[in-house]
Amino acid sequence: MKFVCNKDDILNEILYSMDFTSQRNSLSITSNVYLETSGGRLIIRATDQKLGFSTEIAVETLQAGKTTVFCEKLLNILRSLPDTKIDFSLEDGMLTIKPEEQNIDFKLRTIGADEFPSLENSESSSYFTIPQKSFTDMANQTMFAISEDETRYFLCGLYLERNASGMNMVATDGRRLSIVERTFEEDLPMFPSIIIPPKFFTELKKLSTDEGMLDLAITENILFAKIGNRTFYTTLIKGQYPNYRRVIPETQTYTCTMRIQDMLDALKRVSLLVENKAKRIFLDISESGVLLTSDESEVGEAKEIIACQYEGPDTKVSLNYTYLVNPLKVMEGEYFSISFTEPTRAMTVKPDSNKDYFHIIMPMQPNA
Amino acid sequence: MKFVCNKDDILNEILYSMDFTSQRNSLSITSNVYLETSGGRLIIRATDQKLGFSTEIAVETLQAGKTTVFCEKLLNILRSLPDTKIDFSLEDGMLTIKPEEQNIDFKLRTIGADEFPSLENSESSSYFTIPQKSFTDMANQTMFAISEDETRYFLCGLYLERNASGMNMVATDGRRLSIVERTFEEDLPMFPSIIIPPKFFTELKKLSTDEGMLDLAITENILFAKIGNRTFYTTLIKGQYPNYRRVIPETQTYTCTMRIQDMLDALKRVSLLVENKAKRIFLDISESGVLLTSDESEVGEAKEIIACQYEGPDTKVSLNYTYLVNPLKVMEGEYFSISFTEPTRAMTVKPDSNKDYFHIIMPMQPNA
Repeated sequence: MKFVCNKDDILNEILYSMDFTSQRNSLSITSNVYLETSGGRLIIRATDQKLGFSTEIAVETLQAGKTTVFCEKLLNILRSLPDTKIDFSLEDGMLTIKPEEQNIDFKLRTIGADEFPSLENSESSSYFTIPQKSFTDMANQTMFAISEDETRYFLCGLYLERNASGMNMVATDGRRLSIVERTFEEDLPMFPSIIIPPKFFTELKKLSTDEGMLDLAITENILFAKIGNRTFYTTLIKGQYPNYRRVIPETQTYTCTMRIQDMLDALKRVSLLVENKAKRIFLDISESGVLLTSDESEVGEAKEIIACQYEGPDTKVSLNYTYLVNPLKVMEGEYFSISFTEPTRAMTVKPDSNKDYFHIIMPMQPNA
Repeated sequence: MKFVCNKDDILNEILYSMDFTSQRNSLSITSNVYLETSGGRLIIRATDQKLGFSTEIAVETLQAGKTTVFCEKLLNILRSLPDTKIDFSLEDGMLTIKPEEQNIDFKLRTIGADEFPSLENSESSSYFTIPQKSFTDMANQTMFAISEDETRYFLCGLYLERNASGMNMVATDGRRLSIVERTFEEDLPMFPSIIIPPKFFTELKKLSTDEGMLDLAITENILFAKIGNRTFYTTLIKGQYPNYRRVIPETQTYTCTMRIQDMLDALKRVSLLVENKAKRIFLDISESGVLLTSDESEVGEAKEIIACQYEGPDTKVSLNYTYLVNPLKVMEGEYFSISFTEPTRAMTVKPDSNKDYFHIIMPMQPNA
């Protein structure tokens, strides 16, 4: 195997590949990146057996061949090299990396390409196309509500389901729920509801070209995505997602409207004095304003009042302040509302502007 | 106690104070910052019992008094507040922090000022004045050679001694040594040689106003420093610093001169393939250039040749590459030289430009 290419061309792809390797050590095949050259192109692949990545770039192929090398080392070497053309050649199990016209010479041990696991194949799946931005935005508005409790593994991902004219994305950890119900202008096929591991979206965001389109293909076990020459996939989380509709109140009696930034600023301050593990703060909602207070702790206490629009009885609720901070941080518009019927039952948090997402928060019991 | 001041004025000083606290927890007195107001000024003090800090700012004193509060919490609260005047008042053991004309109200528990340890007193010591930049630069050129071996605690600091027309600063870990022999135009008093803990210089760099002057006072046990209103000190490391002059070769037979940046770039690359704990690389010095190589490891190997000016026999040395990287990173000028007599004896590394610092490196034994 022998090929020549520009440093930046290969560096860019190896950087993406890195995230899909298992990163364990130089001896495990899934820490390696797969390189195969023929006919003027280089195919690059990486997988940790759950996620997979495949891409290709134009190179000058001098001798066709394939091999695998420790991805992290290759990345660090490429990063350290001057910006020039680089010669790659495989001989006696060592990959030589040599920038042209430089007195620099790296040799990396390889593992045979035959030992590299085969990637999941999307050829029999049919892709559909949507804007990248819309899909990553759906994840941004919900991802924070994913459970971290591995014993409820089926809540440790984002639930994606087809709706009448688009898709819903849902996350819940059992104490709060976030949902986007989005309409797409594009033609979407029917597909089974799936649970997507959050790492897929971490990679999607890195690979995203923002304004571009995204091709998706969904099978029972795999979600494939394609952006330009780059294909990546994740195996899905198996299991039955709960009937989340049951926890969404159909109506609420009272609604309190506030400025998003006012609430974020106040939460940032009052939470400084929250020392309890449950991250509890209190909201005293009244027509004259919303009073935020921390529990009294060994350090001290904090109070802050923010303006609101509200008609209803004085109501005190206590909740985990991160359940408000997380959605408000990414919420669009200037105002948001908290709607409720009783202080101990599920509250609805949504942007005041007309958006297709909202959040359900279970308050804590008053004497918890 | 009651006073009013601008947020930024007090925030700035509390930020500096933070580094001098023990940071342990809200109940330990050395995690607290000392506040004392009277006659239009606020005195602020912090200490972890080894280092100490004292400063004062102008405030509007409404009622004289003193107290201590958990420094980290006070810092975070101040950071979170809008940029305005802030009212501080002590009542029933709680310090209330209230930005004017805002619905924000923090209360922090205090510990009585009487429990705060008294700071070391510099009043009987005489200060001398030197440029801040010159003193911090001396530390920059030597600090990396300080030992991290706590069993040789007397090597875990920077050695400072008076020379005929200025001061020497020395650091060594037993395998390498760095020294600055600096002349000062300022009038310096005689003082005992001392060993300064590195944390002093971390703080000095933060407090430094760069172009300004620095007042120092040296006693047998304490080094005091003063910049403007701020005084800080460190207790010194006790013990006998070794006779470091013995390891500095008086003459060397051969000298090899290279570009600093060439060597740094090559070391950065070749060290990527150094997997051994001793961080060993090889230098093959010859009239045609210096070849850098890594040991062959399970990952691979690296080679690079850089240009040099050298007249002498081909010589192979092996050394810990960080012993070159550390001094070269902060060395001034374009060229540097390695001088030696035998490949297994101490080498001298110095800037080609006429500077007052140099470094001694012990190479490894060839078959180590």
